[in-house]
Amino acid sequence: MPKLYTNFESGNSYKVRLFAALARITLEEYQVDLPGNEHHGPDFLAINPRGEVPVLVDGERTFRDSAAILTWLAGTYAAPGWGGRDTGEQAEVIDWLAFSASWIQYGVFTARAIVSFRGTYNGVGFQKEEVTLNEARIRSQKSLEILETALRGQDWLVLGRPTIADISVFPYVALAPMGDIPLEPWPAIRAWIDRIRALPGFIPVIGLDDPHYRRKESQA
Amino acid sequence: MPKLYTNFESGNSYKVRLFAALARITLEEYQVDLPGNEHHGPDFLAINPRGEVPVLVDGERTFRDSAAILTWLAGTYAAPGWGGRDTGEQAEVIDWLAFSASWIQYGVFTARAIVSFRGTYNGVGFQKEEVTLNEARIRSQKSLEILETALRGQDWLVLGRPTIADISVFPYVALAPMGDIPLEPWPAIRAWIDRIRALPGFIPVIGLDDPHYRRKESQA
Repeated sequence: MPKLYTNFESGNSYKVRLFAALARITLEEYQVDLPGNEHHGPDFLAINPRGEVPVLVDGERTFRDSAAILTWLAGTYAAPGWGGRDTGEQAEVIDWLAFSASWIQYGVFTARAIVSFRGTYNGVGFQKEEVTLNEARIRSQKSLEILETALRGQDWLVLGRPTIADISVFPYVALAPMGDIPLEPWPAIRAWIDRIRALPGFIPVIGLDDPHYRRKESQA
Repeated sequence: MPKLYTNFESGNSYKVRLFAALARITLEEYQVDLPGNEHHGPDFLAINPRGEVPVLVDGERTFRDSAAILTWLAGTYAAPGWGGRDTGEQAEVIDWLAFSASWIQYGVFTARAIVSFRGTYNGVGFQKEEVTLNEARIRSQKSLEILETALRGQDWLVLGRPTIADISVFPYVALAPMGDIPLEPWPAIRAWIDRIRALPGFIPVIGLDDPHYRRKESQA
């Protein structure tokens, strides 16, 4: 059984857990202690030198980024259609996996990390939180505009069906209110969030219905 | 013929131009005037609401991220082997395409953008350049460590052959000195850069052999 190194507060891990739930894929889950800094310890770094969750170990294979993990699981264990069926479809999906890794990660992800977790990312303890937070909010606004434009008049990001592109973009967008970024101005995004939440097998994540969730002091 | 919206100073565009040169793919090139802000004008935003280069338009298809463009070109026009041949190989490649979109983009890319271009990115004019630059340098250091570890004892990032994973990670790493980030401490990375530069058909980019290249004032 594939083993997922995950954390219950991690939205990037949730991308994989959500997809596994929707596609009925069974994973063994190992909780990495992020507040205890386990992801920067030697045992974890031996598995993933990037020091990040999620990681998937499946037999001889190890994947260290949610985009790679989603691609692997969709192509190997899921019903056809969750990934791309040919090169053109794959490239359309990857267009949004990359958007998720860049715009989303350094926009709504970062705002949430600072507001809800006073966090660090990629080994960077945010130096001057107000500067980084301000940049993240500008980028969040712009990326929500892009997403709203893309979703206007269509139900799913690409290919006319739910794919791992939607699953990859969904978590940090739906969690944006944790970073004090409201979703009220974006009707197409809100309708898309509702469609994803209505998919059979959907599971929630910490903070999705409680944007004021904060990591407990004892864990920090 | 596929049409590439590109700019001669853009490292993300260079990923595609370099790959096309190596794989002998002919593209029509349209130079987007970045200093003139053409990428934020209505005509360009109608093609790419993200306001970024590169963009590839190929018949009815449009791809708005270098990772998607590389995947499309490799799977459609290139000799087999540049992309992944099956799901496992594709996922291994995507692991590094995602690294390029996140770690590289917000590390060495950002340091170069500030130092050499005093630039903006994703609609964000860097608010307090010294804070953002400092974060980018910390992230650059960490990402070069990760890359050095990955390349120690192997010639290519994945699959034992040059792939679009290498082509995607290469530009901003090779251009790191433009952001005042030296490559001397990283022997495995330097050897890998030399291997890529020795590939038949290789083309350089502005700044590769002149890290003190700066955009002319008249263009700024």
